[in-house]
Amino acid sequence: MDKFLYGGDYNPEQWLDQPEILKQDLELMKKAKINTVTLGTFSWASIEPREGEYHFEWLDKIFDDIYQMGGHVILATPSGGRPQWMSQKYSEVNQVDEYGRRHTHGFRQNHCYSSPIYRQETQKINTILAKRYGKHPALLMWHVSNEFGGQCFCDLCQENWRKWLQNKYQTLDNLNKAWYLRVWSGMYSDWSQVLPPNPLGETKVHGMDLDWKRFVTAMTIDFYESEAKPLREITPDIPITTNFMAEGLDKGDYYPITGLDYSQFAKHVDVVSWDSYPAWHNDYETLAETAMKSAYTHDCFYSLKHKPFLIMESTPSCINSQQYNKSKRPGMNILSSLQQIAHGSDSTLYFQIRQAQGNSEKFHGGVIGHDGSSENRVYQEVAQYGSKLENIAEIKGAIKKPKVGIYYDWESNWAFNRGGAFGRPTRLGIQTLQKHYSIFWGQDIACEIINGEDDFTKYDLIIAPIMYMYRDATVTKLEKFVKAGGTLVGSYFTGMADEYDRVILNGLPTKLRELFGINTKEIDTLYPKQHNHVEFGDKSYVTKDYNQIIDTTTAKVLGKYQDDFYQDTPAVVKNEFGQGTTYYLATRLGRDFLKEFYRPIIDKLQLANDFVLDSKYEVSCQVRIKNGVRYYFLMNFSEDQQVIHTRCESTNVEDGSTVGTEIHLEKYGCLVLKLNE
Amino acid sequence: MDKFLYGGDYNPEQWLDQPEILKQDLELMKKAKINTVTLGTFSWASIEPREGEYHFEWLDKIFDDIYQMGGHVILATPSGGRPQWMSQKYSEVNQVDEYGRRHTHGFRQNHCYSSPIYRQETQKINTILAKRYGKHPALLMWHVSNEFGGQCFCDLCQENWRKWLQNKYQTLDNLNKAWYLRVWSGMYSDWSQVLPPNPLGETKVHGMDLDWKRFVTAMTIDFYESEAKPLREITPDIPITTNFMAEGLDKGDYYPITGLDYSQFAKHVDVVSWDSYPAWHNDYETLAETAMKSAYTHDCFYSLKHKPFLIMESTPSCINSQQYNKSKRPGMNILSSLQQIAHGSDSTLYFQIRQAQGNSEKFHGGVIGHDGSSENRVYQEVAQYGSKLENIAEIKGAIKKPKVGIYYDWESNWAFNRGGAFGRPTRLGIQTLQKHYSIFWGQDIACEIINGEDDFTKYDLIIAPIMYMYRDATVTKLEKFVKAGGTLVGSYFTGMADEYDRVILNGLPTKLRELFGINTKEIDTLYPKQHNHVEFGDKSYVTKDYNQIIDTTTAKVLGKYQDDFYQDTPAVVKNEFGQGTTYYLATRLGRDFLKEFYRPIIDKLQLANDFVLDSKYEVSCQVRIKNGVRYYFLMNFSEDQQVIHTRCESTNVEDGSTVGTEIHLEKYGCLVLKLNE
Amino acid sequence: MDKFLYGGDYNPEQWLDQPEILKQDLELMKKAKINTVTLGTFSWASIEPREGEYHFEWLDKIFDDIYQMGGHVILATPSGGRPQWMSQKYSEVNQVDEYGRRHTHGFRQNHCYSSPIYRQETQKINTILAKRYGKHPALLMWHVSNEFGGQCFCDLCQENWRKWLQNKYQTLDNLNKAWYLRVWSGMYSDWSQVLPPNPLGETKVHGMDLDWKRFVTAMTIDFYESEAKPLREITPDIPITTNFMAEGLDKGDYYPITGLDYSQFAKHVDVVSWDSYPAWHNDYETLAETAMKSAYTHDCFYSLKHKPFLIMESTPSCINSQQYNKSKRPGMNILSSLQQIAHGSDSTLYFQIRQAQGNSEKFHGGVIGHDGSSENRVYQEVAQYGSKLENIAEIKGAIKKPKVGIYYDWESNWAFNRGGAFGRPTRLGIQTLQKHYSIFWGQDIACEIINGEDDFTKYDLIIAPIMYMYRDATVTKLEKFVKAGGTLVGSYFTGMADEYDRVILNGLPTKLRELFGINTKEIDTLYPKQHNHVEFGDKSYVTKDYNQIIDTTTAKVLGKYQDDFYQDTPAVVKNEFGQGTTYYLATRLGRDFLKEFYRPIIDKLQLANDFVLDSKYEVSCQVRIKNGVRYYFLMNFSEDQQVIHTRCESTNVEDGSTVGTEIHLEKYGCLVLKLNE
Repeated sequence: MDKFLYGGDYNPEQWLDQPEILKQDLELMKKAKINTVTLGTFSWASIEPREGEYHFEWLDKIFDDIYQMGGHVILATPSGGRPQWMSQKYSEVNQVDEYGRRHTHGFRQNHCYSSPIYRQETQKINTILAKRYGKHPALLMWHVSNEFGGQCFCDLCQENWRKWLQNKYQTLDNLNKAWYLRVWSGMYSDWSQVLPPNPLGETKVHGMDLDWKRFVTAMTIDFYESEAKPLREITPDIPITTNFMAEGLDKGDYYPITGLDYSQFAKHVDVVSWDSYPAWHNDYETLAETAMKSAYTHDCFYSLKHKPFLIMESTPSCINSQQYNKSKRPGMNILSSLQQIAHGSDSTLYFQIRQAQGNSEKFHGGVIGHDGSSENRVYQEVAQYGSKLENIAEIKGAIKKPKVGIYYDWESNWAFNRGGAFGRPTRLGIQTLQKHYSIFWGQDIACEIINGEDDFTKYDLIIAPIMYMYRDATVTKLEKFVKAGGTLVGSYFTGMADEYDRVILNGLPTKLRELFGINTKEIDTLYPKQHNHVEFGDKSYVTKDYNQIIDTTTAKVLGKYQDDFYQDTPAVVKNEFGQGTTYYLATRLGRDFLKEFYRPIIDKLQLANDFVLDSKYEVSCQVRIKNGVRYYFLMNFSEDQQVIHTRCESTNVEDGSTVGTEIHLEKYGCLVLKLNE
Repeated sequence: MDKFLYGGDYNPEQWLDQPEILKQDLELMKKAKINTVTLGTFSWASIEPREGEYHFEWLDKIFDDIYQMGGHVILATPSGGRPQWMSQKYSEVNQVDEYGRRHTHGFRQNHCYSSPIYRQETQKINTILAKRYGKHPALLMWHVSNEFGGQCFCDLCQENWRKWLQNKYQTLDNLNKAWYLRVWSGMYSDWSQVLPPNPLGETKVHGMDLDWKRFVTAMTIDFYESEAKPLREITPDIPITTNFMAEGLDKGDYYPITGLDYSQFAKHVDVVSWDSYPAWHNDYETLAETAMKSAYTHDCFYSLKHKPFLIMESTPSCINSQQYNKSKRPGMNILSSLQQIAHGSDSTLYFQIRQAQGNSEKFHGGVIGHDGSSENRVYQEVAQYGSKLENIAEIKGAIKKPKVGIYYDWESNWAFNRGGAFGRPTRLGIQTLQKHYSIFWGQDIACEIINGEDDFTKYDLIIAPIMYMYRDATVTKLEKFVKAGGTLVGSYFTGMADEYDRVILNGLPTKLRELFGINTKEIDTLYPKQHNHVEFGDKSYVTKDYNQIIDTTTAKVLGKYQDDFYQDTPAVVKNEFGQGTTYYLATRLGRDFLKEFYRPIIDKLQLANDFVLDSKYEVSCQVRIKNGVRYYFLMNFSEDQQVIHTRCESTNVEDGSTVGTEIHLEKYGCLVLKLNE
Repeated sequence: MDKFLYGGDYNPEQWLDQPEILKQDLELMKKAKINTVTLGTFSWASIEPREGEYHFEWLDKIFDDIYQMGGHVILATPSGGRPQWMSQKYSEVNQVDEYGRRHTHGFRQNHCYSSPIYRQETQKINTILAKRYGKHPALLMWHVSNEFGGQCFCDLCQENWRKWLQNKYQTLDNLNKAWYLRVWSGMYSDWSQVLPPNPLGETKVHGMDLDWKRFVTAMTIDFYESEAKPLREITPDIPITTNFMAEGLDKGDYYPITGLDYSQFAKHVDVVSWDSYPAWHNDYETLAETAMKSAYTHDCFYSLKHKPFLIMESTPSCINSQQYNKSKRPGMNILSSLQQIAHGSDSTLYFQIRQAQGNSEKFHGGVIGHDGSSENRVYQEVAQYGSKLENIAEIKGAIKKPKVGIYYDWESNWAFNRGGAFGRPTRLGIQTLQKHYSIFWGQDIACEIINGEDDFTKYDLIIAPIMYMYRDATVTKLEKFVKAGGTLVGSYFTGMADEYDRVILNGLPTKLRELFGINTKEIDTLYPKQHNHVEFGDKSYVTKDYNQIIDTTTAKVLGKYQDDFYQDTPAVVKNEFGQGTTYYLATRLGRDFLKEFYRPIIDKLQLANDFVLDSKYEVSCQVRIKNGVRYYFLMNFSEDQQVIHTRCESTNVEDGSTVGTEIHLEKYGCLVLKLNE
């Protein structure tokens, strides 16, 4: 399709006895320029209400209707919600929790990933769906299951767990060593003794916890692949995805979920897609701050394949799962949806086209509300945005070329949160990445969130704070990167543990010592009310949470601690290494420091935005590039009008008009401009 | 009995080996003018310590002793605490919790309401008790079990649950639709798949949760009726009650418990009785505020039958179940006990006559303390109040004639708390009713708390905020009420869901649109730190939590929003409908607003208290009416002397003296006055 | 050994495949003057990796190595962490939790104390160890298991519970009365009905909860004795201990754990030893306050046998189990370790000699860090302290002779926390003892923490606040103590319950009335924001939490309440009794009051420190006495230099130099001085 995908999840099966509603839906979708709907999520019981009894007539009809409307279908496999009869007849399909309790039917996404019966049933229904709809001209993409997550502790999963470990470690002796089981007399003498970590058994083995998370990711992908198999076979040309997620809203945070290693999962999907639900208009941060976290998360998902992704779900108004579920103010749906596009999405898809009448999501925003009215404020903004999207359709597929990479290692973050003691409430690994990210986002400098498998040579600057888990291959790549002229920023909590979360002996590994030109000595953990200060440039900055004590070998000291027994020792250092430069931040500092710290680096590396002359935190400018044209998205994430100056005149993509160098953006205003390269 | 019932729970079985204590108790009871004791609560093991082995001698004796003292007995059936041998021998009598765990013996009120054995055992013991004591001249009333509550998830209860649903819905298709099970593929294909809501199974179906609460109420009543059956048969002239409860103290709230629908349960008792435990003298609100919540709760229980009720339990000093259990200050036991009478109680009964020596209630206040002394401050106040009660005995049976009804729908409140998303911590349905109530209580205007089955024609004003669940029959009655000249106040969150907690489509139901002269558009949920303002009269008032956006058809705008994108849209409107008037409050406003809002309504409807000229929040005046005489209870809920002016002179009921029109009430002071109508 | 024990837990089995590390460890230990290591804790699987297959070669070697180094071994029995094969093969050895769930292998200290198989297995391994190492010249002491704690609810434990009760109560009737089971119909009719208190059964019987705690202590000791039996038989000359613990850090508290009655357990160990982990350098209190709580806890453990004890574990740097795990600042390890010695320890032992590489304790401080470097700051301070300890070796075995006893009854504290209602969050029994203790510690006056079995005649002053449980034997001893001229301080919440936690009838027991010259009337519980005031001397002091209302018989009133309905009634009284004096504090008052209150008592009893003239809260002076020499430990628990004046010149124990009467102590500074008596 040559347009941005626009539409969302649609569940006509909820309205089969009200055909006038189905008719109204089609009309309203058309009017809003909706071109894509996701069908089939959680439709299993509507398709197969009793074992072997199939009902496709309703799905056939909506497929045809969408096609006649000129639309496309993303077809979801229904495994996210199996039918009651299956849970009842084949109890093995139900998850067993960490206490060993087999759950009965309820909620969703709660099946066992090991169950042969469930794998067989999902392959069967997927085969039927692929055969029936695989050649339907409306079919655009497969959406396997829904929001994968969860874990199961049943006997089958335990058996798979042991097999996975046997395959990884070969011998029990290797396992006993890797998990450091001499502590507390925990060595296994037989494979059958190995159980999953669980509150009625073992909860204190860091390597086990880490491997369990790896195993859960592996099992989830394995199940996904089992579902995808018949689809790939029957419809080899139809791309396959599954919708990823973000988390953290309950703590005021926002980033990709940490329960699954998406850097692995992403290899198995043809297109990355995810469900975007930031907490706009909250009362604990500015709108720009919400926008920054949202931007970070978009960039994470873009970076998984370094390609445009899809927003598979978002809300046109309020979400319903939080403590407070506020409606988007007028303009915010357009602004926030355009932010998706600006960061690399090729779609805006909503959950849900029509608000359900009952249960958990009945008060979640919908394109078509309970009033079914085209006068509805939410609907009208959706329709307005539909037109806007059509006007900028030429941008679809455009890419990004960031020169800044922020290093995020999913496994290291797991280990850091589990095995690092120091201050439990203050580890804040991802939040620290976001703090660095915010300095660049605030200056309209694009970043990617990269991992050890990525090509580092594309970047001028790599920021890798809290690289807790030491990976020799990654560090070797970083050495090459810096030697060749790259700039690297590292921090405290780096190079501390191996891939089994065992502490690395004899201090900072040699390669890191040389790279940063330092030796590390000890980490001082601060209580929340305790602080130190660092003198840097001509100012003093407050440190918090962690002060690492280091000394320098080849590095030059840029900032020193001002207090405590390590007063006057190095806190911020710089090291010339090959053609490049590294920086090491031994302590946790605030954004005021980071802004000053990065200023000369940005200047030297010429990272500044090439279009906006006066970047402000409240106004974001993102760039996508296609066929030699640079597309600039200007977005005002504030409650006031903002004035922005640009390097040159540009063209408004929506209407082709020329835009001058002084741009006035209204509250929540956004503009899409272009320049030839 | 022509006196107020005075006394309380008495457990002589705890002191059988100390006959001098039993003797002392009788003397002290007599001296305190106690005329009623509740016996038998939790006495089962004392009566039947081993299966089939009965011991009545101690109960016979106390029955006779009380009678000889001139007192009466409320006899409790012992089912609240079954004997150990029964729990051990017949495990089915023990509750199964939501995790499927069969509990063993412990605590109290923890039996299965379905168990045929438990029903049979309770009927058996009740039959024996009724035959033995049914004709005893001291027997005044039956008190079935104690503080009914709880729920059971055993197989028998699950079977009853399915039967109850089959009876209600007839077909699975009806059930699937009512519970909106197309969401997440939850449709049942066989009745055997239907389980109770539980954390190891289904927790996300709003209609199921709502029906489960209805079922729990139905099962509780059914069990109560099974217990009552032999009593009714053997002693048809002895009234039957069971003690209801209030809750919320742990949150600083106070209102009837919400776990059971007392509006249904009340139909099955001959007299409403309840256990009153407000948190007097706390540190989070004024004494008057505690009194207001207590008054509200009294009025709820009065309204269940629109008749005098009984206080079955209260404390003469401290309660023992809270985080902080403060003693009542001198005067407070009399003041708070008289408040019960003022609001319609025909009794003051205490838990407990004598403080237990052990376990959970050993430090709960008792008429007779551990010191067994008549010099005890608590005992002396109890005795003083005993005399007071005798002096005002003529009031017993007097009724109330409120002109203001506050609408409270137990089922709607369940659905609102479960299925409403918006702001989870800020739904506060009952607290909102109390906020309205407080305006009237503060001006000494009597209210009832009514539901859809009540006769609306008795009232001049009906206040029905947050009528979340739409009931056509109720709305039709409200239409008639207003058409005939009544005044109605409604609010945001009205008419949103049907009786299955499914959202009502196409906006506010037509009858409500016409009644209030508005259309509703959307609800804006506010985070706690967010506010809007409403201009009303010549002042501006702060809104919080919820702002509904509406427009008017026939209604007149009284107040508009002052901020945000719905600035200048209606927030408070008034509509003439038939002979009557309705008001709609689209937003949550504080008491400062409500006081101004209700002022002209109170004036127009002439609702003001007919006796007190200068009502104060700290001084409450309540009225009871009997045989053409109006009895006024004046109560000072403050720490200072208060001066009150009355319309005319009156007579002090206690001593027949004439009381002038300027009345000085000491701190915690109270007076009972009367006027002929 | 004629030196202080210095060293700690060492686990060479973690490094068997790295012999160079084992060699390095020995060298570093020697260099740091380490003379004692604890081996074998959690070594079971290293010794017996498969049932019946033993590996002692590594243990033999380290035993010999330590001996050759001139060191000693404390040998731990390995029962704290059994091997996987045992948990798998004999499931009865695994604990069953309060929900009846049999746990699998995991964590540590989680075995059933009843299991015959576990007792047999532990006796078997202990026998082997005793035979193999019992005559090894390095063997100094047995360390049975590790940090006993926990409880089990399996059938075997339930059977033991019933046997224990049968033995205690003989008849069910006695049990029913003791537990006051007439309440809620809880009487047993057969012993088989008696289960442990548990959340799926009985949780509301105070006497049961109290007896369960007694039973858990008894079972733990019984298991310990079963382990000790073969050790005593085979190595009758080797002393036996087990390491006790403190708790409360998660609440900002610190005192011996309350789960086990150490006053009973202590009778079974040859030497008291414990694991000391105060939260130095936190952000919620001053350093001196942390030191005071640490001092209190040391004194508790000293008082168990009124003899020097051992510190079995402590950290040279940070702990790893708290929310924030801060490193000890330079000097603090020496200061805090010396505090142990000052209060009566004959050892400083660390957990751990070498930091583990993995799992829960990998970031806990170690003498030898992950860097294995002698340049490590922590190691260097350990070595410095090693020299210091050698220099003061003459003090080993010195005792203390406090004249102040603070009465702490473990069982009373259990009952008070469980059965006392009043204010749940404000009972704070131990914290109240510490408040009194702090007045004396702040003035360098030594205290013991004593119980009813101790000899009271050794003391001039006994402080016994909140003596909730009435023990006639103890009160009789107190009577004698006061009659003979002793001074006693008591408080509210005294003499309220008997040993079954049943309330004592008829007010304060006669002996207490006479002792204090008062009658008690009622206790007024205050909410946190509520206060009263007491006039005492010429000042007014704020009361909180509890005001007891009393009147005096023979007592003289020293302070009266100033507010509320009990204004002008006695709050602080003094009574002459025989040759002695008692004081009763009817209300909870702050340290400002206590300091003034104790001033004349300290003066009269001449309790003041005999060395330091100007005691400060920040500087502690503790005394140990041996062979007619008084050893003074001066310790600066502040961040500033402190000046202290002494009565006379003294001798520095470390170097024999003469120290003048004005002593300047640096931040964290400490000095050990001596004087001949």
